[in-house]
Amino acid sequence: MITLLTDFGTKDHFVSAIKGVILSINPEVKIIDISHDVAKYDVEAAAYTLLCAHKWFPKGTIHVVVVDPGVGTERRGLVVKSRNYLFIGPDNGVLIPAARRDGLEKVLEIKNEELMLKSVSTTFHGRDIFAPVAAWLSKGAPLDIVGPPFSRYKDLALLKPCRIMRRTIECRVIHIDGFGNIVFNVKPQDINRVNLQRGDTVEITLPKTTVKARLQPSYGYVKTGEPVLVINSEGFLELAIREGNAARKYCVQRGNFVIIKILC
Amino acid sequence: MITLLTDFGTKDHFVSAIKGVILSINPEVKIIDISHDVAKYDVEAAAYTLLCAHKWFPKGTIHVVVVDPGVGTERRGLVVKSRNYLFIGPDNGVLIPAARRDGLEKVLEIKNEELMLKSVSTTFHGRDIFAPVAAWLSKGAPLDIVGPPFSRYKDLALLKPCRIMRRTIECRVIHIDGFGNIVFNVKPQDINRVNLQRGDTVEITLPKTTVKARLQPSYGYVKTGEPVLVINSEGFLELAIREGNAARKYCVQRGNFVIIKILC
Amino acid sequence: MITLLTDFGTKDHFVSAIKGVILSINPEVKIIDISHDVAKYDVEAAAYTLLCAHKWFPKGTIHVVVVDPGVGTERRGLVVKSRNYLFIGPDNGVLIPAARRDGLEKVLEIKNEELMLKSVSTTFHGRDIFAPVAAWLSKGAPLDIVGPPFSRYKDLALLKPCRIMRRTIECRVIHIDGFGNIVFNVKPQDINRVNLQRGDTVEITLPKTTVKARLQPSYGYVKTGEPVLVINSEGFLELAIREGNAARKYCVQRGNFVIIKILC
Repeated sequence: MITLLTDFGTKDHFVSAIKGVILSINPEVKIIDISHDVAKYDVEAAAYTLLCAHKWFPKGTIHVVVVDPGVGTERRGLVVKSRNYLFIGPDNGVLIPAARRDGLEKVLEIKNEELMLKSVSTTFHGRDIFAPVAAWLSKGAPLDIVGPPFSRYKDLALLKPCRIMRRTIECRVIHIDGFGNIVFNVKPQDINRVNLQRGDTVEITLPKTTVKARLQPSYGYVKTGEPVLVINSEGFLELAIREGNAARKYCVQRGNFVIIKILC
Repeated sequence: MITLLTDFGTKDHFVSAIKGVILSINPEVKIIDISHDVAKYDVEAAAYTLLCAHKWFPKGTIHVVVVDPGVGTERRGLVVKSRNYLFIGPDNGVLIPAARRDGLEKVLEIKNEELMLKSVSTTFHGRDIFAPVAAWLSKGAPLDIVGPPFSRYKDLALLKPCRIMRRTIECRVIHIDGFGNIVFNVKPQDINRVNLQRGDTVEITLPKTTVKARLQPSYGYVKTGEPVLVINSEGFLELAIREGNAARKYCVQRGNFVIIKILC
Repeated sequence: MITLLTDFGTKDHFVSAIKGVILSINPEVKIIDISHDVAKYDVEAAAYTLLCAHKWFPKGTIHVVVVDPGVGTERRGLVVKSRNYLFIGPDNGVLIPAARRDGLEKVLEIKNEELMLKSVSTTFHGRDIFAPVAAWLSKGAPLDIVGPPFSRYKDLALLKPCRIMRRTIECRVIHIDGFGNIVFNVKPQDINRVNLQRGDTVEITLPKTTVKARLQPSYGYVKTGEPVLVINSEGFLELAIREGNAARKYCVQRGNFVIIKILC
């Protein structure tokens, strides 16, 4: 099984070219889209999406990521082996947070030209290098023929820890989802440390406004249009508006600095 | 075969998490997207889309719907058996119009925790409950282990009949498609009752404007940019602009009240 | 294997209805989306996308295109056989540039009603005619039962040659991709004829502005936000802005007339 995660959008032929190349080599493989609508050139957004998505797939799944503003320069191409998965994509850090979460075991630089298309373009390595490498590996090609081990790969500090002081959390917006829900880099252990409990009210200082909300099990515990704090399906603290778009209403963007103060 | 219909959009990892869960349980099953771009939280829009889509799939297809603003509250999860299909999703009415059209036979409440993921979140039952239940049923798990029969399920009166008086139809906009075509709750039998025939001119009173158009077999029977009335591919009366966007031009929204008067 | 290319968008049930019809006839076939977000009614954009996409798929792939503003009129439906592929869609020229590139061998008019759905609508031949014809052909139905040969099919002069005078190219914008990259009808042989080489600076006269840029191997050879000229992954000359949107910044649209002058 091969998954695809790109910033190509769905208007052009790019994604289908990748699929065609894969299926020309391995017609039996299943290809699943993670997303092609990652914000363009946004390596961090792609890394976060991969971090959330990769672990729901069966052991042995090959995750291909093509968010690659450095294509055609001297940036390397990598195959990363973790405990349960292979990750294939550019050496810009996008693969590393997910691979590390799963247990990073080995990083190889893609060097073997026999695994690439005969003619490699300078602007579309997703199609000409990553796709055929994924297809050959899905067919059982041994991992080590890809190329030599590579240790100086680029990293991405996606999930810097938030800062906790008594009953205050200083954190950042790490993601805004398609519903406009605002996701913070605050994990269950952080929530335990500040002793934030269901029903507690917090004051959230955002760049343009301050919001009061309660921690609830889910969105439907408040009235339509009201803010609510939940622990989302990936375990992150999240500010939402029931059946509304919190990021738009509160003018919040990914990366914003936020203070969450537990009032009671 | 399993279909998916959600309001998750395609930017996030949500849809892929559902697919990963399904394929981890049943790697052989075929997963087909109906849509992930239903208007967010819009149960009626999803019910209409399911009503149009479900019947084109092979007998035995399992249709999973996750348009679920009530997730994590006391709202139930359902498996609905109709003559040819299974429908899985929240108890908010979204499944019922399609199941009833196909011949509703049985409604079960999802209670069996052995069919769910080990850890069930409060905000993503699509991934943690509906996906694994669909996967197990696609693998041949007997329907009755899902849970007990449930009769007080929520209904949705999606297709209220239009009102016909001599040669006038009072109706509503039940859908606006991606082309901007305006679909009315007017069915072939209604069209027969008012004796509307090909070539007839009607006057359509919309909230902001009045439009004259003729009933034609298809869009190409008028000039580019002109309005035309057709019986669409699902049998509903539809107002379109050839190679244009009627809903945008006439400022029409789903739910609008409309009067159609046959002039000649 | 069957690919789909439409202007249906992903909000409605249309694409899934096509897939359901195909899978009801041939549950084993693999269906790959090329795109459903081609600009609506834009036959040229679809023809260009098909031209770029078709050749990456395995020999024998059936490419179905439904960009079909003339549906339900007297416009014909076609099956086009080229050296490696079958193309199915309306007779509006959309299939021809790709088929010709691959080596056009035969054009048949779809006439055999036994290959269509029992009830054919006047507004959705993608579902009622093209999908079942593709499914039957993918199951091994002999090509010739589709209908009689047809020679007066509509053509589309997608790639008019650009005009070259000494070191100046007069060309057109044939595509703007999802990144905002501006693609010109300038091919490698044209680039050779004007002796444009890596590192050369050109002056590009666009409708609203004039841009200076250098030909480079890829986007990453200039600073973020700066313009760059590349030969794209399909061999066309392309003007891009590194990690930016050139078409938006320079107010360029498909079809615009452009002069490219080599300065040094």
